[in-house]
Amino acid sequence: MPGYAKDRAAVQARLRRIEGQLRGIQKMVDEDRYCIDVLTQVGAVKAALDRVAVLLLQDHVEHCVADAIRSGDSEEKVRELTEAVARFLQA
Amino acid sequence: MPGYAKDRAAVQARLRRIEGQLRGIQKMVDEDRYCIDVLTQVGAVKAALDRVAVLLLQDHVEHCVADAIRSGDSEEKVRELTEAVARFLQA
Amino acid sequence: MPGYAKDRAAVQARLRRIEGQLRGIQKMVDEDRYCIDVLTQVGAVKAALDRVAVLLLQDHVEHCVADAIRSGDSEEKVRELTEAVARFLQA
Amino acid sequence: MPGYAKDRAAVQARLRRIEGQLRGIQKMVDEDRYCIDVLTQVGAVKAALDRVAVLLLQDHVEHCVADAIRSGDSEEKVRELTEAVARFLQA
Repeated sequence: MPGYAKDRAAVQARLRRIEGQLRGIQKMVDEDRYCIDVLTQVGAVKAALDRVAVLLLQDHVEHCVADAIRSGDSEEKVRELTEAVARFLQA
Repeated sequence: MPGYAKDRAAVQARLRRIEGQLRGIQKMVDEDRYCIDVLTQVGAVKAALDRVAVLLLQDHVEHCVADAIRSGDSEEKVRELTEAVARFLQA
Repeated sequence: MPGYAKDRAAVQARLRRIEGQLRGIQKMVDEDRYCIDVLTQVGAVKAALDRVAVLLLQDHVEHCVADAIRSGDSEEKVRELTEAVARFLQA
Repeated sequence: MPGYAKDRAAVQARLRRIEGQLRGIQKMVDEDRYCIDVLTQVGAVKAALDRVAVLLLQDHVEHCVADAIRSGDSEEKVRELTEAVARFLQA
């Protein structure tokens, strides 16, 4: 089971809300709404995705990484986590 | 007409693709896929939104800001653009 | 003259302050300060750099881009601006 | 000892290099260099700071968080880590 099993409902609820925001943006573009207002909504979706990412990371450390550390074999999991954060930051 | 009128089809095509990516992420969570893989897809959607933002900004400068500059009354438009970029960068 | 000529003093003052923050971080590392506190300061420097970037962009649009638009030859300047913002967003 | 003790030399070397980049930017502004080129360098410093942040996070998870998990008392450390990442992402 993935780390986010416990918070799966919360992650899904956020993703559904983000999908709604995204459809709202498509509607704004259909209605020729002002660029700056569209841009502001695009920024809001990005921020909402950051909050989903933080939730996923938290669950991952609490479960998958913690299990690996307890079993004494965490090197690979920590490396994988670090690479995922780097990729997420585009670093 | 907003600045992105010309590129509206391109903006809409990207937004539809992003909506598809987002539904793919919801499916991954439903299927208990590995956290790190879900996180990677969330990062991909964020990057795709950045590219939509750049397209919106480009069209906005090419049209709305350029019109304001030509009409000799661009101060407000430049201030608004700057604030929108700052908000987008969460700066 | 570059667009930021007028705000050069403000840009330089911010850059000097950021250099001070960065030296503060080096001192924190020398003193073995807690990782999370160091990380928080690194985030603060990033946010300060975003505010410098917004100031540079504002001046650039107000001057270089506006001049190009007034002279009727702005295509290259808008393309260059768009590419710079895309690069800055790593988009 | 903080988690980055082992990698302290690497963190310090990166911070010194970033300080050099930052002084280079100040020199560019003194010399009235083109806004877009200054902006590109500001973006490069931000990306370098992201890489320092990833290094700090990796060391923190490998040491402080791992120790807390092994001692069976990791809840507070994971919460603190999650909040630090959220703050860093401005999420």
